[in-house]
Amino acid sequence: MFDFSNNSHRRYNPLTKSWVLCSPHRTQRPWQGQQEGADMEQRPEYDPKCYLCPGNHRANGEDNPKYESTFRFPNDFAAVKADQPELEANDDDLIKVEGVRGECHVICFSPRHDLTLAEMPVQDIKKVVQIWTSSYLEMKKKDYVNHVQIFENKGAAMGCSNPHPHGQMWCTESVPEEPGKELSAMQEYKEKHDGKCMLCDYAQRELNDPERKRTVFENDSFLVVVPFWAVWPFEVMVLPKQHIGSLPEMNDKQQTDLADAIRRITCRYDNLFQTSFPYSMGIHQKPLNDETDTAHLHLHYYPPLLRSATVRKFLVGFEMLGEPQRDLTPEQAATRLRELSEVHYKQQ
Amino acid sequence: MFDFSNNSHRRYNPLTKSWVLCSPHRTQRPWQGQQEGADMEQRPEYDPKCYLCPGNHRANGEDNPKYESTFRFPNDFAAVKADQPELEANDDDLIKVEGVRGECHVICFSPRHDLTLAEMPVQDIKKVVQIWTSSYLEMKKKDYVNHVQIFENKGAAMGCSNPHPHGQMWCTESVPEEPGKELSAMQEYKEKHDGKCMLCDYAQRELNDPERKRTVFENDSFLVVVPFWAVWPFEVMVLPKQHIGSLPEMNDKQQTDLADAIRRITCRYDNLFQTSFPYSMGIHQKPLNDETDTAHLHLHYYPPLLRSATVRKFLVGFEMLGEPQRDLTPEQAATRLRELSEVHYKQQ
Ligand SMILES: O=P(O)(O)O[C@H]1O[C@H](CO)[C@@H](O)[C@H](O)[C@H]1O
Ligand SMILES: O=P(O)(O)O[C@H]1O[C@H](CO)[C@@H](O)[C@H](O)[C@H]1O
Repeated sequence: MFDFSNNSHRRYNPLTKSWVLCSPHRTQRPWQGQQEGADMEQRPEYDPKCYLCPGNHRANGEDNPKYESTFRFPNDFAAVKADQPELEANDDDLIKVEGVRGECHVICFSPRHDLTLAEMPVQDIKKVVQIWTSSYLEMKKKDYVNHVQIFENKGAAMGCSNPHPHGQMWCTESVPEEPGKELSAMQEYKEKHDGKCMLCDYAQRELNDPERKRTVFENDSFLVVVPFWAVWPFEVMVLPKQHIGSLPEMNDKQQTDLADAIRRITCRYDNLFQTSFPYSMGIHQKPLNDETDTAHLHLHYYPPLLRSATVRKFLVGFEMLGEPQRDLTPEQAATRLRELSEVHYKQQ
Repeated sequence: MFDFSNNSHRRYNPLTKSWVLCSPHRTQRPWQGQQEGADMEQRPEYDPKCYLCPGNHRANGEDNPKYESTFRFPNDFAAVKADQPELEANDDDLIKVEGVRGECHVICFSPRHDLTLAEMPVQDIKKVVQIWTSSYLEMKKKDYVNHVQIFENKGAAMGCSNPHPHGQMWCTESVPEEPGKELSAMQEYKEKHDGKCMLCDYAQRELNDPERKRTVFENDSFLVVVPFWAVWPFEVMVLPKQHIGSLPEMNDKQQTDLADAIRRITCRYDNLFQTSFPYSMGIHQKPLNDETDTAHLHLHYYPPLLRSATVRKFLVGFEMLGEPQRDLTPEQAATRLRELSEVHYKQQ
């Protein structure tokens, strides 16, 4: 009999229409390679040298306001800009290019230099949800912005160069590759399944599973699940149980519940290896110029750590040139995450 | 006027049918984040503790032969195995899975613990090309192997845990995601363009460019180019100028020329930042069960370093959740690589 916790298999990601190789017997592999620096540092509440702390001086010469909850400002090294000539996509099958205008912003989550979302109270995280929401609405007014990509890189292992809690928002003329792929897969699913939403159906499937094998936890509005097709060892998806297309469609209760889900998953992450858990998080939702109801709001968390605060999973050779590969099964990862406390280890 | 070396644009990768965001003005961004350990270590020719050196003891209890050129053995922690029950793909649009049988092998490039391909003479690299070729042919005889993915992870930054020069070969029942995507894009191109091969046409385009903007170098049989759609800062593709579907189709002269191309590009890489340059390399070619002539043999090199031996490009938040982003243009990268010596800095 085929044993999913011991035999190699491929799982299909219906959102990106791609496969992931899962090799559960490989979890026993010893590791003699590169170790990450564990983030155990004690940080001050205010750091006079941090360019994100309230009142401090930034690279462009401006001073930050003495902000008390969240604070947004334009990225000093923006990847896209509003003021450049337009360039339409050309029609060449080998050398194809198009211009991209837009804006990049940084969003500080808290004036406190020493906190992360994992240690912040729900009411403060709710303010982050609210600034994401109002920023999305603000961008809707700009004709050169059609998509808002909100994300957070947390930890040095994820290319983050400042520990002050913050995320980014890259707003572009074009819908980027990943959300674009997801939207077209969701559109196809809808056509095939009498107008149903793929992620509504998926949330229902996980909720109906009597063993709740991949569910980490849920609250009234959200389900937090290790998706069947997860690539990163402890990857999760935060899914509204009801159909919500974008952040502004949430009511007050749903905003609170999203903040609650964010607090609880990031806290469990930190508790897993008793370290400030690195990850990249991103929000996928309706593009600004999208008139359909195909999109279903969701958050992806992609954390690299595999076995400890210092041993990560490398997605390299086979993963880059062949296909993503994981050892631990998504069901095993969900079990580990389910067992953890929702009180942060630093606050216990 | 739109300025490709200063304005943000997206470039299309026709092989994977996906876009890459290029933000050339962002090259000036300062870096205060994580630094890589530069690999400056002097290694002995033979290391008694290395499990890849000739005559040494391996994890599974076996002793390596006293090999004098290349040496292949089955991976002790294989991601896929020959002896597991079969499992056909099921027919579920949300939870879709299939079994994967196969074999994983490790290929040592040289008995010398202290060398890398960048420092090896062409005639020794040719032996590596030959063992790749004979291994591919050997796998053709196994009914549970339809695809051979040859790759090399070089350097600790690319998850490599042993500096002894070696690569791997993962042989699977299924054609993995990346080569699968490329093959279907090449098939579509062929249908649209009267049976022409996409990579033959692309090689010709680059060779016909009067400025040779993206070409690093060429020899009689191969072109080494920073593809128009490169993601990694110094990514290159090694392309046969004539149509070759797989390694066994090469004649003796082409084997020598491939070894020459590998030596010259890896040597330029090391010379760029005077360090042993990390990368993942992989060979894409015809799947074993492929009867068409769609595939065009090529090597991809994905090196992470951006600015120095210690500063890499992180493909994180926006790149994972939005789309791959690069600063330096492919043309700028090619110019840098073209200027470098083909004598290794350690041998100068
Ligand atoms: O097999 P190795 O070299 O120990 O391991 C390395 O390469 C593999 C194939 O790309 C990856 O799955 C591992 O994450 C990586 O650490
Ligand atoms: O903008 P940051 O935080 O300096 O930079 C980080 O996030 C960006 C967006 O994911 C990436 O392009 C950079 O490679 C990474 O280092």
